[in-house]
Amino acid sequence: MKIGIIGLGLIGGSLGFDLRDCGHTVYGVSRKESTCQRAIERGLVDEANMNFESLKTVDIVFICTPINKIYSTVKNIINDLSPNTIITDVGSVKTPIVEQCEQLWDNFVGGHPMAGTAEQGIEAGQKNLFKNAPYVITPTEKTPKNSIKILENLAQSLNSTVYICSPEEHDQAVAWISHLPVMISASLIASCLGEIDRNVLILAQQFASSGFKDTSRVGGGNPQLGVMMAEYNQKALLAALQAYRQQLEQVIEKIEEKQWQSLERLLTKTQAERSRFIH
Amino acid sequence: MKIGIIGLGLIGGSLGFDLRDCGHTVYGVSRKESTCQRAIERGLVDEANMNFESLKTVDIVFICTPINKIYSTVKNIINDLSPNTIITDVGSVKTPIVEQCEQLWDNFVGGHPMAGTAEQGIEAGQKNLFKNAPYVITPTEKTPKNSIKILENLAQSLNSTVYICSPEEHDQAVAWISHLPVMISASLIASCLGEIDRNVLILAQQFASSGFKDTSRVGGGNPQLGVMMAEYNQKALLAALQAYRQQLEQVIEKIEEKQWQSLERLLTKTQAERSRFIH
Repeated sequence: MKIGIIGLGLIGGSLGFDLRDCGHTVYGVSRKESTCQRAIERGLVDEANMNFESLKTVDIVFICTPINKIYSTVKNIINDLSPNTIITDVGSVKTPIVEQCEQLWDNFVGGHPMAGTAEQGIEAGQKNLFKNAPYVITPTEKTPKNSIKILENLAQSLNSTVYICSPEEHDQAVAWISHLPVMISASLIASCLGEIDRNVLILAQQFASSGFKDTSRVGGGNPQLGVMMAEYNQKALLAALQAYRQQLEQVIEKIEEKQWQSLERLLTKTQAERSRFIH
Repeated sequence: MKIGIIGLGLIGGSLGFDLRDCGHTVYGVSRKESTCQRAIERGLVDEANMNFESLKTVDIVFICTPINKIYSTVKNIINDLSPNTIITDVGSVKTPIVEQCEQLWDNFVGGHPMAGTAEQGIEAGQKNLFKNAPYVITPTEKTPKNSIKILENLAQSLNSTVYICSPEEHDQAVAWISHLPVMISASLIASCLGEIDRNVLILAQQFASSGFKDTSRVGGGNPQLGVMMAEYNQKALLAALQAYRQQLEQVIEKIEEKQWQSLERLLTKTQAERSRFIH
């Protein structure tokens, strides 16, 4: 197949590597000349251009820009595409993206390869990034069945595990396991910093070890990414946060009222059930 | 010095190893014959007994039992000790322990070596467990100065970093960095499990990766230990939980009201300040 990739950072670059290894011809697009050159040097793409000319003949385009640029990118390329071309994206929130983009282009299939590293930019792309990772495809009733199948086959060729669900189901699931953890973890750091006894704060900073380190990790991540999750996945994240607040209030109540058996039952349940989330 | 250690699990056993390496003579006490034998085989102690006879001549006794057995252990041994003997403990909460034990024994010094592994029991003890870890000593106004100094020297000989603070300061600091994380992490798991859409719950379990894994880790730990933290450190933990709830409500409000700049400022602050807790 002829495959276009717009945005040659971690996800776009890694897709390029693997799709070329599968025998496809990859046409990269970047805004920067130097990125285009480097993409060819690194072997991420067969060709790289700063305009959309090369997309005229491709079968599918992967939009691998930041989430807030996906819609405008689709808008900008559709005049250059052949009508059969599939457009897909790799954004980590799906409902608003799919809603808007399928209005622009009938043959749009939302996708979310759930793999990553802490790196970004043209040097970040790596081989086998998607191996054994979930690749979520989020069609709607309007999405052409054949296009879903084509994307599914490509995702499988990356050795990803493919999941197909609605954009709303995807967004609620990632709210629980990705976006909610960021907010509760950031709140942990922020509430510690609110300790008014300076001695206690300094002791807390000195005593903190692996428990605090792990629980606070995602709350110490990229702020812009955190805001984007909240902005794009506001509804599902708020639903998760409100359920979480209720759960937290139950824990506080158990401790206030010394309901130790009830607290132990809860902690026994969380200990047992955590394994279902850990692979 | 002659040193007694009651309880030969992870902490007691590891103390035995290192204190013997420093040239001290270590007298272990355990309730079980087989544990006594194994402690000698492993080289954790010089002698091991099921009664308190051997403690008659020791200079200092480390109580390394679970936290809910510290007070009764002190009560049980004091008739067998010489009046100059220092008693110290290794409990992870200090205020109630120190309050009660110093009423039984003037020469009591509260302590908390903040090191550990997931292991427990007689096979868990290991050399150099306390190296570079905090060893917190929590005297009160009544604690004999010379006894503090002796414990401090012993802790330094384990290559620990010694901190001296009040029992209350210790408890509030560990509430922030150890006990609060357990409760918020368990609440994360419990709130996810409350998702009523079965499809979404299963997707969440399938999609969960390192972010969820890290944030949920301490909430999936030993339930009895979690309850004991809450029970013994109730006051400080509740103070931390209430401050945390307020912070969480601010985050929810920012997201509800689309205050993205304010959310970004918060996440920028937590990203920058987290490093003060990570060593």
